[in-house]
Amino acid sequence: MSDPFFQPVSGFDLPRFAGIPTFMRLPHVPPDHARFAEVEIGLIGVPWDSGTTNRPGPRHGPRQLRDASTMIRAQNGATGLRPFEAAACADLGDVGPNPADIEDSLERITSFYRQVAGAGIRPLTAGGDHLSSLPILRALAADEPLGMIHFDAHTDFFAGYFGGTKYTHGTPFRRALEEGLLDPKRVIQIGIRGTAYDSEDKDFARAHGVRIVEIEEFFDRGPADVMEEARAVAAGRPTYVSYDIDFVDPAFAPGTGTPEVGGPNSFQALQVARALAGVDIVGADLVEVSPPFDQTGNTAFLGVSIMFELLCAMVAGG
Amino acid sequence: MSDPFFQPVSGFDLPRFAGIPTFMRLPHVPPDHARFAEVEIGLIGVPWDSGTTNRPGPRHGPRQLRDASTMIRAQNGATGLRPFEAAACADLGDVGPNPADIEDSLERITSFYRQVAGAGIRPLTAGGDHLSSLPILRALAADEPLGMIHFDAHTDFFAGYFGGTKYTHGTPFRRALEEGLLDPKRVIQIGIRGTAYDSEDKDFARAHGVRIVEIEEFFDRGPADVMEEARAVAAGRPTYVSYDIDFVDPAFAPGTGTPEVGGPNSFQALQVARALAGVDIVGADLVEVSPPFDQTGNTAFLGVSIMFELLCAMVAGG
Amino acid sequence: MSDPFFQPVSGFDLPRFAGIPTFMRLPHVPPDHARFAEVEIGLIGVPWDSGTTNRPGPRHGPRQLRDASTMIRAQNGATGLRPFEAAACADLGDVGPNPADIEDSLERITSFYRQVAGAGIRPLTAGGDHLSSLPILRALAADEPLGMIHFDAHTDFFAGYFGGTKYTHGTPFRRALEEGLLDPKRVIQIGIRGTAYDSEDKDFARAHGVRIVEIEEFFDRGPADVMEEARAVAAGRPTYVSYDIDFVDPAFAPGTGTPEVGGPNSFQALQVARALAGVDIVGADLVEVSPPFDQTGNTAFLGVSIMFELLCAMVAGG
Amino acid sequence: MSDPFFQPVSGFDLPRFAGIPTFMRLPHVPPDHARFAEVEIGLIGVPWDSGTTNRPGPRHGPRQLRDASTMIRAQNGATGLRPFEAAACADLGDVGPNPADIEDSLERITSFYRQVAGAGIRPLTAGGDHLSSLPILRALAADEPLGMIHFDAHTDFFAGYFGGTKYTHGTPFRRALEEGLLDPKRVIQIGIRGTAYDSEDKDFARAHGVRIVEIEEFFDRGPADVMEEARAVAAGRPTYVSYDIDFVDPAFAPGTGTPEVGGPNSFQALQVARALAGVDIVGADLVEVSPPFDQTGNTAFLGVSIMFELLCAMVAGG
Amino acid sequence: MSDPFFQPVSGFDLPRFAGIPTFMRLPHVPPDHARFAEVEIGLIGVPWDSGTTNRPGPRHGPRQLRDASTMIRAQNGATGLRPFEAAACADLGDVGPNPADIEDSLERITSFYRQVAGAGIRPLTAGGDHLSSLPILRALAADEPLGMIHFDAHTDFFAGYFGGTKYTHGTPFRRALEEGLLDPKRVIQIGIRGTAYDSEDKDFARAHGVRIVEIEEFFDRGPADVMEEARAVAAGRPTYVSYDIDFVDPAFAPGTGTPEVGGPNSFQALQVARALAGVDIVGADLVEVSPPFDQTGNTAFLGVSIMFELLCAMVAGG
Amino acid sequence: MSDPFFQPVSGFDLPRFAGIPTFMRLPHVPPDHARFAEVEIGLIGVPWDSGTTNRPGPRHGPRQLRDASTMIRAQNGATGLRPFEAAACADLGDVGPNPADIEDSLERITSFYRQVAGAGIRPLTAGGDHLSSLPILRALAADEPLGMIHFDAHTDFFAGYFGGTKYTHGTPFRRALEEGLLDPKRVIQIGIRGTAYDSEDKDFARAHGVRIVEIEEFFDRGPADVMEEARAVAAGRPTYVSYDIDFVDPAFAPGTGTPEVGGPNSFQALQVARALAGVDIVGADLVEVSPPFDQTGNTAFLGVSIMFELLCAMVAGG
Repeated sequence: MSDPFFQPVSGFDLPRFAGIPTFMRLPHVPPDHARFAEVEIGLIGVPWDSGTTNRPGPRHGPRQLRDASTMIRAQNGATGLRPFEAAACADLGDVGPNPADIEDSLERITSFYRQVAGAGIRPLTAGGDHLSSLPILRALAADEPLGMIHFDAHTDFFAGYFGGTKYTHGTPFRRALEEGLLDPKRVIQIGIRGTAYDSEDKDFARAHGVRIVEIEEFFDRGPADVMEEARAVAAGRPTYVSYDIDFVDPAFAPGTGTPEVGGPNSFQALQVARALAGVDIVGADLVEVSPPFDQTGNTAFLGVSIMFELLCAMVAGG
Repeated sequence: MSDPFFQPVSGFDLPRFAGIPTFMRLPHVPPDHARFAEVEIGLIGVPWDSGTTNRPGPRHGPRQLRDASTMIRAQNGATGLRPFEAAACADLGDVGPNPADIEDSLERITSFYRQVAGAGIRPLTAGGDHLSSLPILRALAADEPLGMIHFDAHTDFFAGYFGGTKYTHGTPFRRALEEGLLDPKRVIQIGIRGTAYDSEDKDFARAHGVRIVEIEEFFDRGPADVMEEARAVAAGRPTYVSYDIDFVDPAFAPGTGTPEVGGPNSFQALQVARALAGVDIVGADLVEVSPPFDQTGNTAFLGVSIMFELLCAMVAGG
Repeated sequence: MSDPFFQPVSGFDLPRFAGIPTFMRLPHVPPDHARFAEVEIGLIGVPWDSGTTNRPGPRHGPRQLRDASTMIRAQNGATGLRPFEAAACADLGDVGPNPADIEDSLERITSFYRQVAGAGIRPLTAGGDHLSSLPILRALAADEPLGMIHFDAHTDFFAGYFGGTKYTHGTPFRRALEEGLLDPKRVIQIGIRGTAYDSEDKDFARAHGVRIVEIEEFFDRGPADVMEEARAVAAGRPTYVSYDIDFVDPAFAPGTGTPEVGGPNSFQALQVARALAGVDIVGADLVEVSPPFDQTGNTAFLGVSIMFELLCAMVAGG
Repeated sequence: MSDPFFQPVSGFDLPRFAGIPTFMRLPHVPPDHARFAEVEIGLIGVPWDSGTTNRPGPRHGPRQLRDASTMIRAQNGATGLRPFEAAACADLGDVGPNPADIEDSLERITSFYRQVAGAGIRPLTAGGDHLSSLPILRALAADEPLGMIHFDAHTDFFAGYFGGTKYTHGTPFRRALEEGLLDPKRVIQIGIRGTAYDSEDKDFARAHGVRIVEIEEFFDRGPADVMEEARAVAAGRPTYVSYDIDFVDPAFAPGTGTPEVGGPNSFQALQVARALAGVDIVGADLVEVSPPFDQTGNTAFLGVSIMFELLCAMVAGG
Repeated sequence: MSDPFFQPVSGFDLPRFAGIPTFMRLPHVPPDHARFAEVEIGLIGVPWDSGTTNRPGPRHGPRQLRDASTMIRAQNGATGLRPFEAAACADLGDVGPNPADIEDSLERITSFYRQVAGAGIRPLTAGGDHLSSLPILRALAADEPLGMIHFDAHTDFFAGYFGGTKYTHGTPFRRALEEGLLDPKRVIQIGIRGTAYDSEDKDFARAHGVRIVEIEEFFDRGPADVMEEARAVAAGRPTYVSYDIDFVDPAFAPGTGTPEVGGPNSFQALQVARALAGVDIVGADLVEVSPPFDQTGNTAFLGVSIMFELLCAMVAGG
Repeated sequence: MSDPFFQPVSGFDLPRFAGIPTFMRLPHVPPDHARFAEVEIGLIGVPWDSGTTNRPGPRHGPRQLRDASTMIRAQNGATGLRPFEAAACADLGDVGPNPADIEDSLERITSFYRQVAGAGIRPLTAGGDHLSSLPILRALAADEPLGMIHFDAHTDFFAGYFGGTKYTHGTPFRRALEEGLLDPKRVIQIGIRGTAYDSEDKDFARAHGVRIVEIEEFFDRGPADVMEEARAVAAGRPTYVSYDIDFVDPAFAPGTGTPEVGGPNSFQALQVARALAGVDIVGADLVEVSPPFDQTGNTAFLGVSIMFELLCAMVAGG
């Protein structure tokens, strides 16, 4: 499992600012690469934001996340885990979307992830806006509805926008639920907050059995207790993890399109991801990083730090 | 009370980036507007910073706050309150100051607020630097001294600056107390911190009965406990709320002229405003947002999120 | 014609940083306003960028352009013209697009401009990306193909993108020509430069009679000579003016999605617009200002300075 | 004249990023310093912007200009002149203004410059907004009206603002002319452009004999020809030079409060200053550099490059 | 001790934006100054970053820290201590490094600090990258190994980089320990976190008796408890304090080269420094502030706020 | 020559924001790649800035230049040349420097370029600071001294810095000349300007026969005339081209460490590179792009636009 080919380049050998940036300095192994079949966990970029209803930019997310990810090292400082030795990880490249055609893009993404899933590779995705999760779920939930642990300031369970538009970054899980991709009784949403249009999204979700942990409850109980419940909701069965960077307070993650103040800090942002160890994760994403609004680069660096924790949780296994 | 005229434009109908930005997408109802008399709570901009002793910029605050406020929706996520259905709210426009004449500006502002108060409208102000609170208090405290709940890193109780200059953003409440606009025994200041010239400001305030909660006490007791005391200080009688954005830590609110590190986070910033429900608020302000120092826009967005909580507290009533 | 209602607010009366920003501080006169029918030239925002193939952001253009436009005064410094006294001008507001549905947005825009044109109002548009020009042309060229004077680094005459997608900001004039909205023999494109995919766009345009002035020719001949030719191409008949801010060098206009270095400076940018006096302008636009990439605000201010010159040219008449 | 005490620190000895930054790395010689009387040309900061009618910030100018000035070396690359060997130059420090009292500040500045002039030191000032020039002229023109060569986008000859306010950065030369500090027949203004309220300022100035070279004339004739006329206007008699950084196009100098597009480039900005050699300069200023709007620092660096040319012209003599 | 010469300039007398910025507006007293021998605590800049392995910039730290330090006032708001009255403090200027020669720079710095220590002055240093601490320790630990309280996200105990390079900002304390400058049993490191190459640095340090408090332990126990242990580790004997700004979370301190998310907030950052009172501090530093990555200036302001607390702790004595 | 393997990815197929960024979207062909020997022109990054004497940052240049280069298309808009069809071009990756050891880095770079030159590949380098040119010349001028066409604001012919340090970004060509790598009679430097320490660098260079075209001469004669001379100086023999981005005015290229105002604009920046067609170019570099000072990204985009012109000139042949 500790094949040198799948090890990231060390900053002791090549300075972190040098080299063409792949995710976490892993080898670039696109589907036509000779060693594609050996990959166990694939890091994939979905540079797409056509579902964004306000401030655009996540289409630039994967590239900035790759750049920031050159600061990630081989070992988890908190747990000692060395994920790249525990599983064959690689950067599978980006899915090429069609920025001027939503339907076409949905199909392109699902098609790519079907290929990945077909090869037995578990995907760890860097978005892209949150609509990206829908075509991924279409590929991963082909056989059965999945559970989902979802970190976000918003439920993304809206019925539609702008007079009925069905595909936006505020609607992916409504569609996923309608399409039978999610088992709502195994879905938990954590961090919900901010002003709201109304309660229709929450009412709908709860009526179907979704568990919503709003931010006040999150702070009252603390990350450890909430995550214990999250693992219980996942119930030891195949689960998708979707992590919207706007879960975190905008002081820590300004580079996103729909920030909501009053969120968790960066330590809590890592804690909740680390607490996923033990969940049967079939795939995970980190979405809504928007470089044009991330002047300091803090958002991207926090994003890849979360991705590293997600990766460790995927490696730690279910 | 739920007159469609007074409802904000929904982001489901018109995208948040579209349209001429008024406060919270409310109708623009200046004093000469036909429906001015129907307004119950008026949002007003005071684009003025001539009292600033260090880094200027709050004159640009109201415009940026209006822009950021287009991200505010109709319902309080934490409480479920829908303030725009509970009271007729409108954007009354800006008071036009004279940036090169402090006395003239003080008069212009007081005059505008007398007109507002005379129409029975409670003002919610977007500053402007903190000197703005003085001419507002002159209009609102015409009949009797008011109580005040004041969130800030500084007391703003200084006697004078630069060899005796009386009107700066560090002196408004000294002047207000001298002029009998405030009842010092019903004044509480929360969040005071940072290096100090000396203790003259605090000594003066305390000698008159003002309650000062410094940041160490704030963190020790927690927002809920402190706010319970604040409501007790207000004593169920007419009270002004003044909220300086530098109450919040500069990581959350960098866009201000006199930041002090070591302050509350954004969740606490909302909590304290939410805890004002039950106070008899005759007016409120959010001051010292300085766009030239707010590259990310985080400060303005936090500012309008606080304004929304202040509005909800005003609607919740005394 | 010098009705006080249609005069902009003066910076001598209200400081430029104060007030809710409309285009050039003109009255806001949406279609349902009592005085809509009196408007002669209407300034309109099209906050839309769904046709953008690379860096998004122009959806935020109209709001930033309105903000910057508060620095525009009543008189043209170079010519002495006072356009607001010469024609009734107003801010007609924004067309509300559907950011997640291109076809729907195209219809919304055309519909709005039909209403404007139907009222006899000549539109001066602030984009939006360049695809915005297509639905406008559909409204304005209902009766006959128009001439066009087009300032841009790119021809926007591409056949399609990403495997045949027809509606992007690189294709509007290909579509317009196909739809009979433009008379190619009365179309001139000025400032074309930068690396190219190939020559198909130029070959197509030239084959239909479009005149393309590449940047080398522009600098060799100078703005005055080129603009004399442009007026000749327009031939004294109804002409649309489309001004992409990326015509200008990115040092002067960094806030745009597809910059090309080696362009005109800001003086030349104004000169060419000023030289439109005498052209029968049925409408004009200034597009592709992208605030997320305009940290200094220079692009927006140059944009509104160009819009002011376009307005003066429209007033100067044909 | 080449006293080591008055020589700037070399970047060969101490890196440019090191050391407490004085103007051009000259010794700090405040009025109470033992060698004050030996100074021939004094560089002075006037950190003051209370006359600013729109975007504030020049109060931070002197500090940023000192920082940028550490990149200035000992020799003029174009002429070979080594000014610090030709005259005893020193940083005299800042005049301390009262940011909340215009009258007080005017007096403080005039008083400081009387002391400087009384010691036979010619001042080279770093502003501050343009109102700073008025109290300086009051000190320097005590004996007779001065000529003035003035680079600017604006005449600053307005009668008043906001209903009669006399002291703003748009009025200094109106006041100076009224007070007999300037000989209008020996005043030339170069670079005037942009939209205008009206022509009252120009009409007034021209009626008194002021020569105004608008930007179109400047570009038509070229810097050399215009500057030949400027020297002729100065007529070999005592002349003040006032250089507003907004003379330069905002692409080259974005950090200023009232930019006007369509201005000279940085090479021309230096050329016109260099062409002052031969003028009898009794004092000079570089004003309106506003650090909060100068994210790149380009404006400050251009500002000190201009100051170096002004210094060379002062050394070159009359 | 309260000699007026050693008092900082008050913001009541000279606005904070005015004047040539020295550390905390103290007098500039370089080694050749007449009153050098009277200084008790010397603030020194080490503008040097040649040991930086990733993002450079701390060479610009001292200048930006001086600028930000003009916002520091005379009295500690939390404790009431007035350090400038309790000890003679001065800005000793910068050590001039050789940015292109590490060995030469190490010698220059040690030489300067030997002069400082020889004069009985305790140094409070503004870095510079963390390699700066090594040459300082060489001067201060001439007689005996020192204890050290070290705040940082990284141990800086690495053996070498890039194939054996010994002097980088990741190795200073490995060298110091090897050279006998530190007593490892009196060294405590607080805040360690982030991904790691491996555990060699921690293993080495612990094997020698260094106490490492990782971030999870820090948050579990709280600052007060951890600092009680730190004081115990220092054992009442001569101790150096080294404070890397990346100890703090990057939301509060973005301007640094090797940030690690999940760190303390700004209140905790001050708390730990304040809790040093009682330690026998022979010198202290605040390093790794990198202005090119500090767009808001928050990092520098937090840095000088920490320096002020370090100064108070030094004054409070051992 | 038009092997599909060596063709860049088209923006029509994959949006420009998608994909792992190599130079100009060419294939990544490191020396151990199977097709390395087929490469004719190799694009190489030298992420190194240890020779920088003032503001660091060029170590981050290659990565940002790769990112910006995704906006380059296949065809030269001005000449119609399609370089990627005319020569086999590839991204050879970065040379890994040792940021804390100058000598080691010099050797690593020379070694890499020897391998490149040995394979018959002509290198087009993205720096890195200007010291990078020295180790490259050591590899390329192994057989005979080269001519050089050098665009820069500075001669980089200094003898030493900081008391004799030989290797800095201000000394590479002094060293190259001393080492016999350059034939000074075939060296021309264009664009020299700014303040100077003294004339020693120019005197030395001229004494050896180097032709220096200062900026005044450049503007007087125009780019075409100067470049005709440059081609004559190169004399049809093997010539290196070194292009420091600070040749261009900082309004167009702010992201560099030692800017000098008063330089050429971006059109001229391209013109001079385009005019190299016909020169026998054995290698070329574009250096001193410093991303931390390039907030808009304009510098990097101009940099890669220049690199594209250099590439076209290399393809056009000698």
